[in-house]
Amino acid sequence: MDIYARLEKFRKKIDEEIRDIPSAKEIPLFYEPIHYVNQLSGKKIRPILTILSGLSIGGQLENLLYPAAAVELLHNFSLVHDDIMDNDDIRRGKETVHVKWDVGTAILTGDGLIGLAYRKLLMTPNITDLRIARLFTDAMLNICEGQALDKTFEKIPTVSRDEYLKMIGKKTATLIQLTCQLGAIVGQGTKEQISMLADYGFQLGMAFQIQDDLLDIFADEKDLGKRVGSDLAMNKKTIVTTFLSEKVGKKPIDIKSLEKVKTLLKSHGIIEEIQQMTEIYFSKAKKLLLSMPQNEYTSLLFDLTDFIQTREK
Amino acid sequence: MDIYARLEKFRKKIDEEIRDIPSAKEIPLFYEPIHYVNQLSGKKIRPILTILSGLSIGGQLENLLYPAAAVELLHNFSLVHDDIMDNDDIRRGKETVHVKWDVGTAILTGDGLIGLAYRKLLMTPNITDLRIARLFTDAMLNICEGQALDKTFEKIPTVSRDEYLKMIGKKTATLIQLTCQLGAIVGQGTKEQISMLADYGFQLGMAFQIQDDLLDIFADEKDLGKRVGSDLAMNKKTIVTTFLSEKVGKKPIDIKSLEKVKTLLKSHGIIEEIQQMTEIYFSKAKKLLLSMPQNEYTSLLFDLTDFIQTREK
Repeated sequence: MDIYARLEKFRKKIDEEIRDIPSAKEIPLFYEPIHYVNQLSGKKIRPILTILSGLSIGGQLENLLYPAAAVELLHNFSLVHDDIMDNDDIRRGKETVHVKWDVGTAILTGDGLIGLAYRKLLMTPNITDLRIARLFTDAMLNICEGQALDKTFEKIPTVSRDEYLKMIGKKTATLIQLTCQLGAIVGQGTKEQISMLADYGFQLGMAFQIQDDLLDIFADEKDLGKRVGSDLAMNKKTIVTTFLSEKVGKKPIDIKSLEKVKTLLKSHGIIEEIQQMTEIYFSKAKKLLLSMPQNEYTSLLFDLTDFIQTREK
Repeated sequence: MDIYARLEKFRKKIDEEIRDIPSAKEIPLFYEPIHYVNQLSGKKIRPILTILSGLSIGGQLENLLYPAAAVELLHNFSLVHDDIMDNDDIRRGKETVHVKWDVGTAILTGDGLIGLAYRKLLMTPNITDLRIARLFTDAMLNICEGQALDKTFEKIPTVSRDEYLKMIGKKTATLIQLTCQLGAIVGQGTKEQISMLADYGFQLGMAFQIQDDLLDIFADEKDLGKRVGSDLAMNKKTIVTTFLSEKVGKKPIDIKSLEKVKTLLKSHGIIEEIQQMTEIYFSKAKKLLLSMPQNEYTSLLFDLTDFIQTREK
């Protein structure tokens, strides 16, 4: 059975949990777009990571579903608001909220998703102290800071590799780190286990974003569910533009021409370099899993990491 | 000494607490507009209510400053996002964030203020359980629902009095209720005191919004710090339009002409009716204060209520 099928039972539970919010009939302008976003068929990688992290150290599924739903709702918030800022009109193969409704509605939708995310998190049955709420808040602020860096970088010609890594660390890796960390805490792991799973999430998140940057150029648009080349069109700083400016220097490149960029990447051997870089992050992530208790859930985490490593969308 | 001067010491402490966030140099695109919003000289009524509510039942100022700052930051979030949705270009006498920067930056500013609000709240020294975080989250969602109703009502010709009251209950009274409730909880009041102070906040919030609706038409623009008549221009449903449609029926009124509306309000005796209505809410609020322990802080709450009742901006 492939990894997708093996995770199906968790995906179903997560879907149920995320949809357990006020009905769309209740104030339609608010809840209709929220339901719309939550029902788009994302891969649900983040909540699955929460659940597997927690189960791998002996946690209970009925407790883990709450932080799992919370991280997915927080992720959806960031997609809705980022899509407005980035002028993206397609997400997961469907119209984005600010296109289907309008900008004002999309702002409210994102705000509402933050509130619903906190509500789910604060319902976690076996947690009574403020720790998970504090970590969640720190991550939320980090994600906003990362988005601010991303937008800042659009207005400058090049950024250094360190600046790029700082930005994706905040914008993407923080949430995947939180995802595993919350699973480990709600699963009542040891201090060391919590720290290792958090680090696993961070390494995986870094690898995931670097891959994503490459997919923006090389993926098939139908598979990707969003426009190919949209990062380049927005003058975003990605691993691709960062490596290109390192190789080609300040010589102006017409980075809006997808074909020219592909040719440059091939002629400078940049694709292989980027692949090596992601492999380092994936190896670190897998090495951390080897230090965890070995059981069916750690094995699923391992296979899921492999699955992400070989994804084409 | 007037009430404004008597509250100055609290206002100063609140300002310090609100400004104790990462420097604007740290990711300027994110923290500069946040500092800009937080430094606009609002009246700080909400955080002062938190502090006075808590002190009136024997709470400690050093604990109360955290929830006080949190409610002000949450209030600022809602102003920044609402101003985008309502196309308002002036707030507290200054350019709104989406005008001074742009819509994307203003979205991030509001998101950041939510995160910073939670961070302050979760730092409250004498609280270790999840209760205040849950109440805060419920209030935040209520505020969003209220804003959604407000936007929904813009697109329909009239709303009933009950619909109007439901909308302002969520949009405005909820936050002022939370404000007093958090003060009472962090001040470690009895269950009854917490419930009475929450109810006081709700009644005060209702009175405050109804007053605000009237000020949108009758205030002096320089005093108000925002455009006079902007509610009417946006086709918002206010106490004024609600009473007007009750009196004048479905007969179309050119509600965008401020002078015509003023004449209609006078000729139908609507201003007096609205004033009577706010007085009922203010009386309920004051009556609740009479059931509380009587001390210098309850007395300040009483005087602050009076001050709000007679405000002209």
